[in-house]
Amino acid sequence: PLSSTPAPTVPWKSTSGQNKRQKFESVFPVLRDELIAHFASKGMPKDAIDWYTRNLDYNVPGGKLNRGLSVVDSVEILKGRSLSDEEYFKAALVGWFVELLQAFFLVSDDMMDQSVTRRGQPCWFRIEGVNLLAINDSFMLESAIYHLLKAHFRKDSYYVDLVDLFHETTYYTEMGQLIDLITAPEDHVDLSKFSLDKHRLIVIYKTAYYSFYLPVAAAMYMCGIPASTTTPNGTTSDPYKLALDILIPLGEYFQIQDDFLDFAGTPEQIGKIGTDIIDNKCSWCINTALAVATPAQRKVLDENYGQKDAAKEKTVKGVYEELKIRDRYRAYEEGAYQKILGLIDTISEEQGSDGSPVLKKQVFKSFLDKIYKRTK
Amino acid sequence: PLSSTPAPTVPWKSTSGQNKRQKFESVFPVLRDELIAHFASKGMPKDAIDWYTRNLDYNVPGGKLNRGLSVVDSVEILKGRSLSDEEYFKAALVGWFVELLQAFFLVSDDMMDQSVTRRGQPCWFRIEGVNLLAINDSFMLESAIYHLLKAHFRKDSYYVDLVDLFHETTYYTEMGQLIDLITAPEDHVDLSKFSLDKHRLIVIYKTAYYSFYLPVAAAMYMCGIPASTTTPNGTTSDPYKLALDILIPLGEYFQIQDDFLDFAGTPEQIGKIGTDIIDNKCSWCINTALAVATPAQRKVLDENYGQKDAAKEKTVKGVYEELKIRDRYRAYEEGAYQKILGLIDTISEEQGSDGSPVLKKQVFKSFLDKIYKRTK
Ligand SMILES: [Mg+2]
Ligand SMILES: [Mg+2]
Ligand SMILES: [Mg+2]
Ligand SMILES: [Mg+2]
Ligand SMILES: [Mg+2]
Ligand SMILES: [Mg+2]
Repeated sequence: PLSSTPAPTVPWKSTSGQNKRQKFESVFPVLRDELIAHFASKGMPKDAIDWYTRNLDYNVPGGKLNRGLSVVDSVEILKGRSLSDEEYFKAALVGWFVELLQAFFLVSDDMMDQSVTRRGQPCWFRIEGVNLLAINDSFMLESAIYHLLKAHFRKDSYYVDLVDLFHETTYYTEMGQLIDLITAPEDHVDLSKFSLDKHRLIVIYKTAYYSFYLPVAAAMYMCGIPASTTTPNGTTSDPYKLALDILIPLGEYFQIQDDFLDFAGTPEQIGKIGTDIIDNKCSWCINTALAVATPAQRKVLDENYGQKDAAKEKTVKGVYEELKIRDRYRAYEEGAYQKILGLIDTISEEQGSDGSPVLKKQVFKSFLDKIYKRTK
Repeated sequence: PLSSTPAPTVPWKSTSGQNKRQKFESVFPVLRDELIAHFASKGMPKDAIDWYTRNLDYNVPGGKLNRGLSVVDSVEILKGRSLSDEEYFKAALVGWFVELLQAFFLVSDDMMDQSVTRRGQPCWFRIEGVNLLAINDSFMLESAIYHLLKAHFRKDSYYVDLVDLFHETTYYTEMGQLIDLITAPEDHVDLSKFSLDKHRLIVIYKTAYYSFYLPVAAAMYMCGIPASTTTPNGTTSDPYKLALDILIPLGEYFQIQDDFLDFAGTPEQIGKIGTDIIDNKCSWCINTALAVATPAQRKVLDENYGQKDAAKEKTVKGVYEELKIRDRYRAYEEGAYQKILGLIDTISEEQGSDGSPVLKKQVFKSFLDKIYKRTK
């Protein structure tokens, strides 16, 4: 009878986006419990155990999980087959390390920006009794990465590469955060500090490395892609450099799109109300506007940008429309899309003479497809 | 003539404490410049370069440097000879990594404690224009460790051990910080949360690991001391476990002494005015007092501890005198000293059958000598 038939084991490849996310989410409690068990094993008092549990549960899951999922996706594509349970678990763990890193950045960024909400709930530091302790809480989210990395990967040949990769990415993100913080402080508007070049630098360091390069490079290390490949015809390439050269423009495109949607997306589309103008953000929109504004329009932007005032925000949006920011964005997006397609096309996929695994175009195509012309 | 005689090269061993410190201090500008050159090479804007330089110069040197110097001292003792220039530089670099880690902790701890001064100058976050950016600045001090570690040690066999050691120590310190923050919040006094056991746990995790175990274990890895030693007569020992078992009580003793001097030391002795009572610190003094106080004395402590009020502070000190905290400290110190001497004596110093380097009693004796009966 039907009821006794075992449920078909759904191969990883055919699971839908929704199921992929659920499967990935189901790994979080495993690592959370492992962290808490380790913490408790040190004789920590109950109130501290409860605190760390709440820190993890409040700040780590609950995001879009794109960064974490892209580690799993990339491992899958690079291996070219569905993953064993152990392979899946390890790929998902590394995916969660990216999410832990992001949580570390978001908890602290919200304090530095004095933000109010994050992912539809109050920022962690605004929770009763947390306040400045959130600084140490953010540290513990970062440290959790290296504890778990050691616990699960210490014997793998790529352990040290993953550690170095997370360190370098973290440092770059902090560099980007520093430039952002001194270029666009929440409480002091000075548009003379802005430029499209500065915007590019901030985006690359603050966002692109950890959101785009990190997940893919981590997957590449896990799949044994070597630092240098020589094909039988003697061409030598550096797959990590190649990946970086594609993922940095991809990350830039993603952030510019994010900046544009903050201005042009409806709340239904983006799931929140855009506040970049009011928050004095160094956004692609303001930088593009500044690059083409007349002196009169510049004066309007200087007098209205970055202020907690809805009428001033509307005035800035008026200037954006005058300057045809929507058309400029569409032109930018088309150019970026074609440029990235061209970069992806430079990947040869030719097996190296030592037979080691190689980079695949699909890793980047699948990323680009998720981003191109998205409206949310 | 005298003036043309080259200055005698002073062997490391015979340099005085003052010269040791100066020599160690002279390494800081080298690593600072290396960090800044790397940062600048990423195309960072001038204001960001100046900011990071100021962050490093303001927060990293200028402390007592005991932790950093003890890496150099321990390497010297373990090698049993003066160091080559390259050996010295690498030992000093690792010493500075401990100081960078400490700077990361102190910058953030001062924010969480809302402290006013540090090392005789305003806390970094209180500097005009810094404020909450100090959070990201503290992150960059931590990341600097791993950048330099990779730049100078990636090819050394002990690279991964040093990385793991710094990670683990960092995590432990954050755990200790968490218990401290929820046990003794700066703005809410609740002595029922205090106990000598809690004090011990906080001291071990928040202070002893990074101040005592980290410098010595790092030196041990650099000197090639293996994880396990078997002597010709077949005895197996774990030198790192042995070091930990000595250094944790040593760190505990150091912190208890520090807590005692905060109460009993004169400003001339300790170079500052003690504020532990006013700051609601979970100090050895209050925990010892609580353990032996009568209900009446306990009531006085509850009503007077942890308040910004000099008269109440004086009342607490009066109870400490009634409870003979000075005598109790002297008894504790004598017991701790003898106990640690006994632990040091369990080190065999017998060469392992594979001829690898071994632990030496002098590493710990030199530590203990610096601490025993110090008055500042
Ligand atoms: Mg923010
Ligand atoms: Mg921010
Ligand atoms: Mg945005
Ligand atoms: Mg403090
Ligand atoms: Mg503190
Ligand atoms: Mg003290």
